[in-house]
Amino acid sequence: MEIIDGNQIAASVTADLKAEVARFTGRRPCITLIRVGEDPASVSYVRKKEKTAAEIGLESRLILLPVTITQPELCTLVDQLNTDDGVDGILVQSPLPKPLSEVAVFRRIAAHKDVDGFHTLNLGKLAQEDDTGFVACTPAGIIEMLQRSGVTLSGKHIVVLGRSLIVGKPAALLAMQRKPWANATVTICHSQTANLPALTRQADILIAAIGKPEFVTADMVKPGAVVIDVGVNRVPDSSRKTGYRLTGDVHFASVAPLCAKISPVPGGVGPMTVAMLMKNTVKAYRQNHGLA
Amino acid sequence: MEIIDGNQIAASVTADLKAEVARFTGRRPCITLIRVGEDPASVSYVRKKEKTAAEIGLESRLILLPVTITQPELCTLVDQLNTDDGVDGILVQSPLPKPLSEVAVFRRIAAHKDVDGFHTLNLGKLAQEDDTGFVACTPAGIIEMLQRSGVTLSGKHIVVLGRSLIVGKPAALLAMQRKPWANATVTICHSQTANLPALTRQADILIAAIGKPEFVTADMVKPGAVVIDVGVNRVPDSSRKTGYRLTGDVHFASVAPLCAKISPVPGGVGPMTVAMLMKNTVKAYRQNHGLA
Repeated sequence: MEIIDGNQIAASVTADLKAEVARFTGRRPCITLIRVGEDPASVSYVRKKEKTAAEIGLESRLILLPVTITQPELCTLVDQLNTDDGVDGILVQSPLPKPLSEVAVFRRIAAHKDVDGFHTLNLGKLAQEDDTGFVACTPAGIIEMLQRSGVTLSGKHIVVLGRSLIVGKPAALLAMQRKPWANATVTICHSQTANLPALTRQADILIAAIGKPEFVTADMVKPGAVVIDVGVNRVPDSSRKTGYRLTGDVHFASVAPLCAKISPVPGGVGPMTVAMLMKNTVKAYRQNHGLA
Repeated sequence: MEIIDGNQIAASVTADLKAEVARFTGRRPCITLIRVGEDPASVSYVRKKEKTAAEIGLESRLILLPVTITQPELCTLVDQLNTDDGVDGILVQSPLPKPLSEVAVFRRIAAHKDVDGFHTLNLGKLAQEDDTGFVACTPAGIIEMLQRSGVTLSGKHIVVLGRSLIVGKPAALLAMQRKPWANATVTICHSQTANLPALTRQADILIAAIGKPEFVTADMVKPGAVVIDVGVNRVPDSSRKTGYRLTGDVHFASVAPLCAKISPVPGGVGPMTVAMLMKNTVKAYRQNHGLA
Protein backbone atom coordinates (compact mmCIF):
# COMPACT_ATOMS: atom_id res chain seq x y z
CA MET A 1 0.00 0.00 0.00
CA GLU A 2 1.25 3.44 -0.96
CA ILE A 3 0.01 6.70 0.49
CA ILE A 4 -0.32 9.31 -2.23
CA ASP A 5 1.43 12.41 -0.96
CA GLY A 6 -0.68 15.32 -2.18
CA ASN A 7 1.70 17.89 -0.73
CA GLN A 8 4.64 16.44 -2.62
CA ILE A 9 2.76 16.13 -5.92
CA ALA A 10 1.34 19.64 -5.56
CA ALA A 11 4.90 20.87 -4.95
CA SER A 12 6.03 19.28 -8.21
CA VAL A 13 3.12 20.96 -10.05
CA THR A 14 4.01 24.35 -8.60
CA ALA A 15 7.71 23.78 -9.39
CA ASP A 16 6.78 23.14 -13.03
CA LEU A 17 4.66 26.29 -13.05
CA LYS A 18 7.47 28.31 -11.49
CA ALA A 19 9.84 27.20 -14.24
CA GLU A 20 7.25 28.09 -16.89
CA VAL A 21 6.46 31.50 -15.40
CA ALA A 22 10.17 32.32 -15.22
CA ARG A 23 10.30 32.08 -19.03
CA PHE A 24 7.49 34.60 -19.56
CA THR A 25 8.56 38.04 -20.72
CA GLY A 26 6.53 41.11 -19.79
CA ARG A 27 4.19 41.20 -16.84
CA ARG A 28 3.59 38.17 -14.65
CA PRO A 29 0.34 36.21 -14.60
CA CYS A 30 -2.06 37.78 -12.12
CA ILE A 31 -4.78 36.24 -9.96
CA THR A 32 -7.20 38.43 -8.06
CA LEU A 33 -8.61 36.89 -4.90
CA ILE A 34 -11.81 38.27 -3.45
CA ARG A 35 -12.74 37.47 0.11
CA VAL A 36 -15.95 38.68 1.71
CA GLY A 37 -15.95 38.72 5.50
CA GLU A 38 -13.71 36.96 7.98
CA ASP A 39 -14.80 33.33 7.95
CA PRO A 40 -11.75 31.59 9.49
CA ALA A 41 -11.64 28.80 6.88
CA SER A 42 -11.85 31.36 4.07
CA VAL A 43 -9.07 33.42 5.64
CA SER A 44 -6.90 30.34 5.77
CA TYR A 45 -7.69 29.19 2.20
CA VAL A 46 -7.06 32.62 0.70
CA ARG A 47 -3.77 32.94 2.58
CA LYS A 48 -2.65 29.56 1.23
CA LYS A 49 -3.52 30.68 -2.31
CA GLU A 50 -1.56 33.93 -1.92
CA LYS A 51 1.43 32.03 -0.58
CA THR A 52 1.40 29.48 -3.42
CA ALA A 53 1.03 32.25 -6.02
CA ALA A 54 4.06 34.02 -4.55
CA GLU A 55 6.13 30.82 -4.60
CA ILE A 56 5.42 30.37 -8.32
CA GLY A 57 6.11 33.99 -9.16
CA LEU A 58 2.52 34.97 -9.89
CA GLU A 59 1.15 38.36 -8.98
CA SER A 60 -1.77 38.08 -6.61
CA ARG A 61 -4.12 40.87 -5.66
CA LEU A 62 -6.27 40.51 -2.58
CA ILE A 63 -9.58 42.34 -2.32
CA LEU A 64 -11.17 42.20 1.12
CA LEU A 65 -14.81 43.17 1.36
CA PRO A 66 -17.12 43.67 4.33
CA VAL A 67 -20.08 41.30 4.80
CA THR A 68 -22.27 44.34 4.28
CA ILE A 69 -21.40 44.50 0.57
CA THR A 70 -24.46 44.20 -1.65
CA GLN A 71 -24.92 41.86 -4.58
CA PRO A 72 -24.92 44.73 -7.11
CA GLU A 73 -21.72 46.16 -5.62
CA LEU A 74 -20.00 42.78 -5.79
CA CYS A 75 -21.16 42.30 -9.38
CA THR A 76 -19.87 45.75 -10.36
CA LEU A 77 -16.49 44.87 -8.91
CA VAL A 78 -16.41 41.58 -10.86
CA ASP A 79 -17.36 43.49 -14.03
CA GLN A 80 -14.42 45.84 -13.52
CA LEU A 81 -12.03 42.94 -13.04
CA ASN A 82 -13.46 41.20 -16.11
CA THR A 83 -12.35 44.12 -18.29
CA ASP A 84 -9.05 44.76 -16.48
CA ASP A 85 -6.29 43.61 -18.88
CA GLY A 86 -3.89 43.19 -15.98
CA VAL A 87 -5.99 40.45 -14.38
CA ASP A 88 -5.84 36.90 -15.77
CA GLY A 89 -7.83 35.03 -13.16
CA ILE A 90 -10.56 35.98 -10.70
CA LEU A 91 -11.37 33.90 -7.67
CA VAL A 92 -14.23 34.64 -5.29
CA GLN A 93 -13.64 32.63 -2.14
CA SER A 94 -16.52 30.37 -1.24
CA PRO A 95 -18.68 30.34 0.87
CA LEU A 96 -20.09 33.84 0.48
CA PRO A 97 -21.97 35.13 3.53
CA LYS A 98 -25.74 35.34 3.23
CA PRO A 99 -27.69 36.84 1.51
CA LEU A 100 -25.12 37.03 -1.33
CA SER A 101 -25.75 34.62 -4.18
CA GLU A 102 -22.66 32.57 -4.95
CA VAL A 103 -24.09 31.21 -8.20
CA ALA A 104 -24.86 34.70 -9.50
CA VAL A 105 -21.36 35.94 -8.67
CA PHE A 106 -19.62 32.88 -10.13
CA ARG A 107 -21.57 33.31 -13.38
CA ARG A 108 -20.69 36.99 -13.49
CA ILE A 109 -16.99 36.20 -13.77
CA ALA A 110 -15.96 36.22 -17.45
CA ALA A 111 -15.52 32.63 -18.61
CA HIS A 112 -11.96 33.32 -19.80
CA LYS A 113 -10.97 34.51 -16.31
CA ASP A 114 -12.92 31.83 -14.43
CA VAL A 115 -9.90 29.97 -13.03
CA ASP A 116 -12.16 28.21 -10.54
CA GLY A 117 -13.88 26.50 -13.48
CA PHE A 118 -17.40 27.06 -12.08
CA HIS A 119 -18.81 29.01 -15.06
CA THR A 120 -21.58 27.30 -17.04
CA LEU A 121 -19.58 27.74 -20.23
CA ASN A 122 -16.52 26.07 -18.74
CA LEU A 123 -18.55 23.13 -17.52
CA GLY A 124 -20.05 22.85 -21.01
CA LYS A 125 -16.58 22.92 -22.55
CA LEU A 126 -15.50 20.13 -20.22
CA ALA A 127 -18.43 18.01 -21.40
CA GLN A 128 -17.55 18.89 -25.01
CA GLU A 129 -13.88 17.99 -24.43
CA ASP A 130 -12.92 21.51 -25.49
CA ASP A 131 -9.55 22.14 -23.89
CA THR A 132 -9.81 25.92 -24.09
CA GLY A 133 -12.03 25.87 -20.99
CA PHE A 134 -11.07 25.73 -17.33
CA VAL A 135 -11.74 22.59 -15.32
CA ALA A 136 -12.73 23.01 -11.68
CA CYS A 137 -9.64 22.75 -9.51
CA THR A 138 -10.57 19.79 -7.31
CA PRO A 139 -11.46 17.34 -10.11
CA ALA A 140 -8.52 18.59 -12.18
CA GLY A 141 -6.31 18.02 -9.14
CA ILE A 142 -7.61 14.49 -8.68
CA ILE A 143 -6.75 13.53 -12.26
CA GLU A 144 -3.35 15.25 -12.10
CA MET A 145 -2.61 13.44 -8.84
CA LEU A 146 -3.50 10.08 -10.37
CA GLN A 147 -1.34 10.76 -13.43
CA ARG A 148 1.65 11.88 -11.38
CA SER A 149 1.23 8.78 -9.19
CA GLY A 150 1.56 6.55 -12.26
CA VAL A 151 -2.07 5.42 -12.20
CA THR A 152 -3.42 4.65 -15.69
CA LEU A 153 -7.07 5.59 -16.23
CA SER A 154 -7.69 4.17 -19.70
CA GLY A 155 -10.06 1.21 -19.61
CA LYS A 156 -10.27 1.32 -15.82
CA HIS A 157 -13.56 1.44 -13.97
CA ILE A 158 -13.75 4.62 -11.92
CA VAL A 159 -16.56 4.88 -9.42
CA VAL A 160 -17.30 8.44 -8.32
CA LEU A 161 -19.20 8.69 -5.08
CA GLY A 162 -21.08 12.01 -5.16
CA ARG A 163 -22.64 14.02 -7.99
CA SER A 164 -21.74 17.55 -6.94
CA LEU A 165 -21.17 20.27 -9.50
CA ILE A 166 -17.69 21.07 -8.29
CA VAL A 167 -16.31 17.56 -7.78
CA GLY A 168 -18.33 14.51 -8.76
CA LYS A 169 -19.72 15.50 -12.14
CA PRO A 170 -16.64 17.26 -13.50
CA ALA A 171 -14.41 14.43 -12.25
CA ALA A 172 -16.60 11.96 -14.15
CA LEU A 173 -16.65 14.10 -17.31
CA LEU A 174 -12.88 14.48 -17.18
CA ALA A 175 -12.13 10.80 -16.61
CA MET A 176 -14.36 9.64 -19.49
CA GLN A 177 -12.86 11.97 -22.13
CA ARG A 178 -11.55 10.50 -25.39
CA LYS A 179 -7.97 11.24 -24.39
CA PRO A 180 -5.07 8.79 -24.02
CA TRP A 181 -4.73 9.83 -20.36
CA ALA A 182 -8.47 9.45 -19.70
CA ASN A 183 -10.73 6.93 -21.44
CA ALA A 184 -12.05 5.53 -18.15
CA THR A 185 -15.37 3.78 -17.71
CA VAL A 186 -17.22 5.84 -15.11
CA THR A 187 -20.01 5.13 -12.64
CA ILE A 188 -21.53 8.00 -10.68
CA CYS A 189 -23.15 6.95 -7.38
CA HIS A 190 -24.90 9.17 -4.87
CA SER A 191 -27.29 9.29 -1.94
CA GLN A 192 -30.10 7.64 -3.93
CA THR A 193 -27.99 4.73 -5.20
CA ALA A 194 -29.22 1.24 -4.38
CA ASN A 195 -26.71 -1.46 -3.40
CA LEU A 196 -23.92 1.05 -3.08
CA PRO A 197 -21.23 -1.31 -1.70
CA ALA A 198 -21.74 -3.70 -4.63
CA LEU A 199 -20.94 -0.83 -7.00
CA THR A 200 -18.03 0.73 -5.12
CA ARG A 201 -16.45 -2.72 -4.77
CA GLN A 202 -16.15 -2.82 -8.57
CA ALA A 203 -14.01 0.30 -8.67
CA ASP A 204 -10.44 0.07 -9.88
CA ILE A 205 -10.30 3.70 -8.81
CA LEU A 206 -12.74 5.00 -6.19
CA ILE A 207 -13.24 8.74 -5.82
CA ALA A 208 -15.08 9.53 -2.60
CA ALA A 209 -16.71 12.97 -2.67
CA ILE A 210 -19.93 12.53 -0.75
CA GLY A 211 -19.21 14.75 2.23
CA LYS A 212 -19.88 12.15 4.93
CA PRO A 213 -17.12 11.50 7.46
CA GLU A 214 -15.53 8.03 7.16
CA PHE A 215 -18.45 6.85 5.01
CA VAL A 216 -16.38 4.46 2.88
CA THR A 217 -15.55 1.36 4.87
CA ALA A 218 -13.43 -1.68 4.06
CA ASP A 219 -16.37 -3.76 2.80
CA MET A 220 -16.95 -1.15 0.07
CA VAL A 221 -13.48 -1.36 -1.47
CA LYS A 222 -11.95 -3.95 -3.78
CA PRO A 223 -8.52 -5.16 -2.64
CA GLY A 224 -5.89 -3.51 -4.82
CA ALA A 225 -8.02 -0.47 -5.64
CA VAL A 226 -6.78 3.10 -5.79
CA VAL A 227 -8.80 5.31 -3.43
CA ILE A 228 -8.96 9.11 -3.68
CA ASP A 229 -10.54 10.78 -0.67
CA VAL A 230 -12.01 14.20 -1.48
CA GLY A 231 -13.90 14.67 1.77
CA VAL A 232 -13.06 17.51 4.12
CA ASN A 233 -15.27 16.97 7.14
CA ARG A 234 -14.91 18.58 10.53
CA VAL A 235 -15.78 16.18 13.29
CA PRO A 236 -15.86 17.20 16.96
CA ASP A 237 -12.69 16.20 18.84
CA SER A 238 -12.33 17.45 22.38
CA SER A 239 -8.66 16.38 22.46
CA ARG A 240 -7.82 19.10 19.90
CA LYS A 241 -7.32 22.75 20.74
CA THR A 242 -9.67 23.69 17.91
CA GLY A 243 -12.32 21.31 19.23
CA TYR A 244 -12.43 19.38 15.93
CA ARG A 245 -10.34 17.30 13.59
CA LEU A 246 -10.45 16.97 9.81
CA THR A 247 -11.52 13.66 8.38
CA GLY A 248 -12.14 12.47 4.87
CA ASP A 249 -15.02 10.48 3.40
CA VAL A 250 -12.98 7.28 3.80
CA HIS A 251 -12.41 5.30 6.99
CA PHE A 252 -8.69 5.42 6.45
CA ALA A 253 -7.55 2.98 9.11
CA SER A 254 -9.58 0.07 7.77
CA VAL A 255 -9.52 0.91 4.06
CA ALA A 256 -5.86 1.85 3.58
CA PRO A 257 -4.46 -1.67 4.16
CA LEU A 258 -6.61 -2.95 1.26
CA CYS A 259 -5.52 -0.37 -1.29
CA ALA A 260 -2.80 -0.27 -3.89
CA LYS A 261 -2.72 3.50 -3.33
CA ILE A 262 -4.76 5.89 -1.20
CA SER A 263 -4.79 9.64 -0.74
CA PRO A 264 -5.09 10.84 2.87
CA VAL A 265 -7.02 13.72 4.43
CA PRO A 266 -5.42 16.14 5.06
CA GLY A 267 -2.44 16.09 2.69
CA GLY A 268 -4.17 14.54 -0.32
CA VAL A 269 -6.49 16.30 -2.72
CA GLY A 270 -6.49 19.59 -0.75
CA PRO A 271 -3.04 20.81 -1.76
CA MET A 272 -3.69 19.69 -5.36
CA THR A 273 -6.71 21.99 -5.56
CA VAL A 274 -4.61 25.07 -4.83
CA ALA A 275 -1.92 23.95 -7.30
CA MET A 276 -4.53 23.53 -10.07
CA LEU A 277 -5.89 27.01 -9.37
CA MET A 278 -2.43 28.33 -10.15
CA LYS A 279 -2.17 26.12 -13.23
CA ASN A 280 -5.49 27.53 -14.48
CA THR A 281 -4.23 31.07 -13.86
CA VAL A 282 -1.10 30.43 -15.91
CA LYS A 283 -3.30 28.92 -18.65
CA ALA A 284 -5.52 32.02 -18.61
CA TYR A 285 -2.40 34.19 -18.95
CA ARG A 286 -1.18 32.13 -21.89
CA GLN A 287 -4.58 32.41 -23.60
CA ASN A 288 -4.72 36.15 -22.96
CA HIS A 289 -1.25 36.52 -24.51
CA GLY A 290 -1.86 34.19 -27.45
CA LEU A 291 0.79 31.76 -26.21
CA ALA A 292 0.51 28.02 -26.95
CA MET B 1 -42.11 -8.20 -22.82
CA GLU B 2 -43.49 -4.86 -23.98
CA ILE B 3 -42.37 -2.99 -27.05
CA ILE B 4 -42.17 0.74 -26.33
CA ASP B 5 -44.04 2.48 -29.12
CA GLY B 6 -42.07 5.64 -29.84
CA ASN B 7 -44.54 6.83 -32.45
CA GLN B 8 -47.44 6.61 -30.02
CA ILE B 9 -45.57 8.30 -27.18
CA ALA B 10 -44.30 11.03 -29.50
CA ALA B 11 -47.89 11.56 -30.65
CA SER B 12 -49.00 12.07 -27.05
CA VAL B 13 -46.19 14.61 -26.55
CA THR B 14 -47.20 16.52 -29.67
CA ALA B 15 -50.89 16.37 -28.65
CA ASP B 16 -49.95 17.96 -25.31
CA LEU B 17 -47.97 20.64 -27.14
CA LYS B 18 -50.84 21.29 -29.53
CA ALA B 19 -53.19 21.87 -26.60
CA GLU B 20 -50.65 24.20 -25.00
CA VAL B 21 -49.99 26.19 -28.17
CA ALA B 22 -53.74 26.60 -28.74
CA ARG B 23 -53.90 28.57 -25.49
CA PHE B 24 -51.19 31.06 -26.55
CA THR B 25 -52.42 34.49 -27.55
CA GLY B 26 -50.55 36.56 -30.13
CA ARG B 27 -48.15 35.04 -32.64
CA ARG B 28 -47.45 31.33 -32.71
CA PRO B 29 -44.09 29.82 -31.64
CA CYS B 30 -41.73 29.76 -34.61
CA ILE B 31 -38.94 27.38 -35.52
CA THR B 32 -36.58 28.17 -38.37
CA LEU B 33 -35.08 25.15 -40.10
CA ILE B 34 -31.91 25.56 -42.13
CA ARG B 35 -30.92 22.89 -44.59
CA VAL B 36 -27.74 23.09 -46.65
CA GLY B 37 -27.71 20.95 -49.80
CA GLU B 38 -29.86 18.00 -50.78
CA ASP B 39 -28.61 15.08 -48.65
CA PRO B 40 -31.57 12.66 -48.84
CA ALA B 41 -31.59 11.86 -45.12
CA SER B 42 -31.51 15.58 -44.30
CA VAL B 43 -34.36 16.27 -46.72
CA SER B 44 -36.42 13.58 -45.04
CA TYR B 45 -35.60 14.71 -41.46
CA VAL B 46 -36.39 18.35 -42.20
CA ARG B 47 -39.69 17.42 -43.89
CA LYS B 48 -40.66 15.39 -40.80
CA LYS B 49 -39.86 18.37 -38.58
CA GLU B 50 -41.96 20.73 -40.74
CA LYS B 51 -44.84 18.29 -40.69
CA THR B 52 -44.75 17.85 -36.91
CA ALA B 53 -44.52 21.63 -36.39
CA ALA B 54 -47.61 22.09 -38.55
CA GLU B 55 -49.53 19.41 -36.62
CA ILE B 56 -48.84 21.21 -33.35
CA GLY B 57 -49.68 24.63 -34.73
CA LEU B 58 -46.15 26.01 -34.74
CA GLU B 59 -44.93 28.28 -37.45
CA SER B 60 -41.97 26.82 -39.28
CA ARG B 61 -39.74 28.65 -41.71
CA LEU B 62 -37.54 26.66 -44.03
CA ILE B 63 -34.32 28.15 -45.35
CA LEU B 64 -32.68 26.10 -48.11
CA LEU B 65 -29.09 26.90 -48.92
CA PRO B 66 -26.77 25.68 -51.67
CA VAL B 67 -23.72 23.59 -50.76
CA THR B 68 -21.63 26.46 -52.11
CA ILE B 69 -22.57 28.71 -49.17
CA THR B 70 -19.52 29.84 -47.21
CA GLN B 71 -19.00 29.63 -43.48
CA PRO B 72 -19.14 33.45 -43.06
CA GLU B 73 -22.37 33.63 -45.06
CA LEU B 74 -23.96 30.91 -42.95
CA CYS B 75 -22.81 32.63 -39.76
CA THR B 76 -24.25 35.95 -40.92
CA LEU B 77 -27.58 34.28 -41.55
CA VAL B 78 -27.55 32.73 -38.07
CA ASP B 79 -26.71 36.14 -36.59
CA GLN B 80 -29.75 37.65 -38.30
CA LEU B 81 -32.00 34.90 -36.99
CA ASN B 82 -30.52 35.31 -33.50
CA THR B 83 -31.78 38.89 -33.39
CA ASP B 84 -35.10 38.25 -35.18
CA ASP B 85 -37.81 38.59 -32.52
CA GLY B 86 -40.17 36.48 -34.58
CA VAL B 87 -37.94 33.41 -34.36
CA ASP B 88 -37.96 31.30 -31.18
CA GLY B 89 -35.86 28.35 -32.26
CA ILE B 90 -33.14 27.82 -34.86
CA LEU B 91 -32.22 24.39 -36.16
CA VAL B 92 -29.38 23.76 -38.57
CA GLN B 93 -29.86 20.28 -39.97
CA SER B 94 -26.86 18.02 -39.44
CA PRO B 95 -24.70 16.88 -41.20
CA LEU B 96 -23.43 20.01 -42.93
CA PRO B 97 -21.57 19.37 -46.17
CA LYS B 98 -17.82 19.87 -46.08
CA PRO B 99 -15.96 22.15 -45.61
CA LEU B 100 -18.56 23.84 -43.36
CA SER B 101 -17.85 23.55 -39.64
CA GLU B 102 -20.86 22.19 -37.78
CA VAL B 103 -19.40 23.01 -34.38
CA ALA B 104 -18.79 26.64 -35.35
CA VAL B 105 -22.34 27.04 -36.68
CA PHE B 106 -23.96 25.32 -33.68
CA ARG B 107 -22.05 27.61 -31.32
CA ARG B 108 -23.12 30.64 -33.33
CA ILE B 109 -26.78 30.02 -32.58
CA ALA B 110 -27.85 32.11 -29.58
CA ALA B 111 -28.13 29.83 -26.55
CA HIS B 112 -31.73 30.95 -25.92
CA LYS B 113 -32.75 29.86 -29.45
CA ASP B 114 -30.66 26.67 -29.46
CA VAL B 115 -33.58 24.22 -29.50
CA ASP B 116 -31.21 21.44 -30.55
CA GLY B 117 -29.45 21.81 -27.18
CA PHE B 118 -25.96 21.61 -28.70
CA HIS B 119 -24.68 24.96 -27.42
CA THR B 120 -21.87 24.82 -24.86
CA LEU B 121 -23.90 26.93 -22.47
CA ASN B 122 -26.88 24.58 -22.68
CA LEU B 123 -24.70 21.56 -22.02
CA GLY B 124 -23.24 23.40 -19.04
CA LYS B 125 -26.73 24.20 -17.76
CA LEU B 126 -27.65 20.54 -18.06
CA ALA B 127 -24.66 19.61 -15.92
CA GLN B 128 -25.62 22.37 -13.46
CA GLU B 129 -29.23 21.16 -13.37
CA ASP B 130 -30.34 24.60 -14.50
CA ASP B 131 -33.73 24.06 -16.13
CA THR B 132 -33.63 27.29 -18.11
CA GLY B 133 -31.38 25.56 -20.67
CA PHE B 134 -32.28 23.28 -23.57
CA VAL B 135 -31.46 19.59 -23.41
CA ALA B 136 -30.44 17.88 -26.65
CA CYS B 137 -33.51 16.29 -28.23
CA THR B 138 -32.42 12.66 -28.34
CA PRO B 139 -31.47 12.29 -24.66
CA ALA B 140 -34.47 14.39 -23.64
CA GLY B 141 -36.62 12.09 -25.77
CA ILE B 142 -35.18 8.98 -24.13
CA ILE B 143 -36.04 10.21 -20.65
CA GLU B 144 -39.51 11.40 -21.73
CA MET B 145 -40.15 8.00 -23.33
CA LEU B 146 -39.12 6.18 -20.15
CA GLN B 147 -41.34 8.41 -18.02
CA ARG B 148 -44.36 8.03 -20.26
CA SER B 149 -43.78 4.26 -20.30
CA GLY B 150 -44.04 4.18 -16.52
CA VAL B 151 -40.37 3.37 -15.96
CA THR B 152 -39.03 4.80 -12.69
CA LEU B 153 -35.43 6.02 -12.84
CA SER B 154 -34.80 6.88 -9.19
CA GLY B 155 -32.33 4.51 -7.60
CA LYS B 156 -32.07 2.43 -10.76
CA HIS B 157 -28.77 1.59 -12.38
CA ILE B 158 -28.67 3.04 -15.89
CA VAL B 159 -25.85 1.92 -18.12
CA VAL B 160 -25.23 4.22 -21.08
CA LEU B 161 -23.30 2.64 -23.91
CA GLY B 162 -21.58 5.47 -25.77
CA ARG B 163 -20.13 8.80 -24.63
CA SER B 164 -21.16 11.05 -27.52
CA LEU B 165 -21.87 14.72 -26.99
CA ILE B 166 -25.38 14.54 -28.38
CA VAL B 167 -26.60 11.33 -26.75
CA GLY B 168 -24.46 9.47 -24.24
CA LYS B 169 -23.15 12.29 -22.08
CA PRO B 170 -26.34 14.38 -21.92
CA ALA B 171 -28.43 11.26 -21.27
CA ALA B 172 -26.15 10.43 -18.34
CA LEU B 173 -26.23 13.99 -16.99
CA LEU B 174 -30.02 14.08 -17.25
CA ALA B 175 -30.61 10.72 -15.58
CA MET B 176 -28.38 11.51 -12.60
CA GLN B 177 -29.99 14.87 -11.76
CA ARG B 178 -31.27 15.51 -8.25
CA LYS B 179 -34.86 15.38 -9.42
CA PRO B 180 -37.64 13.04 -8.28
CA TRP B 181 -38.00 11.79 -11.87
CA ALA B 182 -34.24 11.24 -12.23
CA ASN B 183 -31.90 10.26 -9.38
CA ALA B 184 -30.48 7.30 -11.29
CA THR B 185 -27.09 5.74 -10.70
CA VAL B 186 -25.30 6.01 -14.03
CA THR B 187 -22.44 4.11 -15.66
CA ILE B 188 -21.00 5.38 -18.96
CA CYS B 189 -19.32 2.70 -21.07
CA HIS B 190 -17.63 3.16 -24.44
CA SER B 191 -15.20 1.66 -26.93
CA GLN B 192 -12.37 1.57 -24.38
CA THR B 193 -14.35 -0.16 -21.64
CA ALA B 194 -12.98 -3.44 -20.31
CA ASN B 195 -15.38 -6.31 -19.55
CA LEU B 196 -18.26 -4.54 -21.21
CA PRO B 197 -20.83 -7.39 -20.95
CA ALA B 198 -20.25 -7.62 -17.19
CA LEU B 199 -21.20 -3.96 -16.89
CA THR B 200 -24.16 -3.88 -19.29
CA ARG B 201 -25.58 -6.96 -17.55
CA GLN B 202 -25.92 -4.88 -14.39
CA ALA B 203 -28.20 -2.37 -16.08
CA ASP B 204 -31.77 -2.00 -14.89
CA ILE B 205 -32.05 0.36 -17.87
CA LEU B 206 -29.63 -0.01 -20.78
CA ILE B 207 -29.28 2.87 -23.24
CA ALA B 208 -27.43 1.73 -26.36
CA ALA B 209 -25.95 4.65 -28.30
CA ILE B 210 -22.70 3.31 -29.66
CA GLY B 211 -23.46 3.37 -33.38
CA LYS B 212 -22.66 -0.28 -34.09
CA PRO B 213 -25.38 -2.36 -35.74
CA GLU B 214 -26.83 -5.08 -33.48
CA PHE B 215 -23.88 -4.70 -31.09
CA VAL B 216 -25.85 -5.51 -27.94
CA THR B 217 -26.55 -9.22 -27.78
CA ALA B 218 -28.55 -11.34 -25.33
CA ASP B 219 -25.52 -12.17 -23.15
CA MET B 220 -25.09 -8.44 -22.44
CA VAL B 221 -28.57 -7.89 -21.00
CA LYS B 222 -30.02 -8.72 -17.60
CA PRO B 223 -33.37 -10.50 -17.78
CA GLY B 224 -36.10 -8.02 -16.92
CA ALA B 225 -34.11 -4.99 -18.03
CA VAL B 226 -35.51 -2.02 -19.94
CA VAL B 227 -33.54 -1.49 -23.16
CA ILE B 228 -33.55 1.76 -25.15
CA ASP B 229 -32.00 1.45 -28.59
CA VAL B 230 -30.69 4.77 -29.91
CA GLY B 231 -28.77 3.35 -32.87
CA VAL B 232 -29.73 4.29 -36.43
CA ASN B 233 -27.45 2.20 -38.61
CA ARG B 234 -27.84 1.53 -42.31
CA VAL B 235 -26.81 -1.99 -43.19
CA PRO B 236 -26.73 -3.26 -46.77
CA ASP B 237 -29.84 -5.28 -47.68
CA SER B 238 -30.24 -6.30 -51.31
CA SER B 239 -33.86 -7.36 -50.69
CA ARG B 240 -34.85 -3.71 -50.15
CA LYS B 241 -35.48 -1.22 -52.91
CA THR B 242 -33.20 1.27 -51.17
CA GLY B 243 -30.43 -1.31 -50.91
CA TYR B 244 -30.27 -0.98 -47.12
CA ARG B 245 -32.30 -1.43 -43.99
CA LEU B 246 -32.23 0.48 -40.71
CA THR B 247 -31.04 -1.37 -37.66
CA GLY B 248 -30.41 -0.30 -34.11
CA ASP B 249 -27.47 -0.95 -31.81
CA VAL B 250 -29.36 -3.86 -30.27
CA HIS B 251 -29.81 -7.34 -31.73
CA PHE B 252 -33.56 -7.07 -31.29
CA ALA B 253 -34.57 -10.68 -32.07
CA SER B 254 -32.41 -12.19 -29.34
CA VAL B 255 -32.56 -9.36 -26.78
CA ALA B 256 -36.27 -8.48 -26.87
CA PRO B 257 -37.51 -11.74 -25.28
CA LEU B 258 -35.33 -11.03 -22.22
CA CYS B 259 -36.56 -7.50 -21.62
CA ALA B 260 -39.32 -6.03 -19.50
CA LYS B 261 -39.54 -3.28 -22.12
CA ILE B 262 -37.59 -2.48 -25.25
CA SER B 263 -37.70 0.33 -27.81
CA PRO B 264 -37.42 -0.74 -31.45
CA VAL B 265 -35.59 0.79 -34.43
CA PRO B 266 -37.29 2.32 -36.29
CA GLY B 267 -40.27 3.52 -34.27
CA GLY B 268 -38.54 4.06 -30.94
CA VAL B 269 -36.30 6.98 -30.03
CA GLY B 270 -36.42 8.55 -33.53
CA PRO B 271 -39.94 10.00 -33.35
CA MET B 272 -39.27 11.17 -29.77
CA THR B 273 -36.35 13.29 -30.96
CA VAL B 274 -38.58 15.29 -33.30
CA ALA B 275 -41.23 15.70 -30.61
CA MET B 276 -38.65 17.04 -28.15
CA LEU B 277 -37.42 19.54 -30.71
CA MET B 278 -40.95 20.93 -30.80
CA LYS B 279 -41.13 20.88 -27.00
CA ASN B 280 -37.90 22.88 -26.84
CA THR B 281 -39.30 25.37 -29.37
CA VAL B 282 -42.42 25.90 -27.26
CA LYS B 283 -40.19 26.32 -24.21
CA ALA B 284 -38.10 28.94 -26.06
CA TYR B 285 -41.31 30.77 -26.96
CA ARG B 286 -42.47 30.71 -23.36
CA GLN B 287 -39.11 32.06 -22.16
CA ASN B 288 -39.12 34.77 -24.83
CA HIS B 289 -42.59 35.81 -23.73
CA GLY B 290 -41.93 35.64 -20.01
CA LEU B 291 -44.45 32.82 -19.56
CA ALA B 292 -43.97 30.22 -16.84
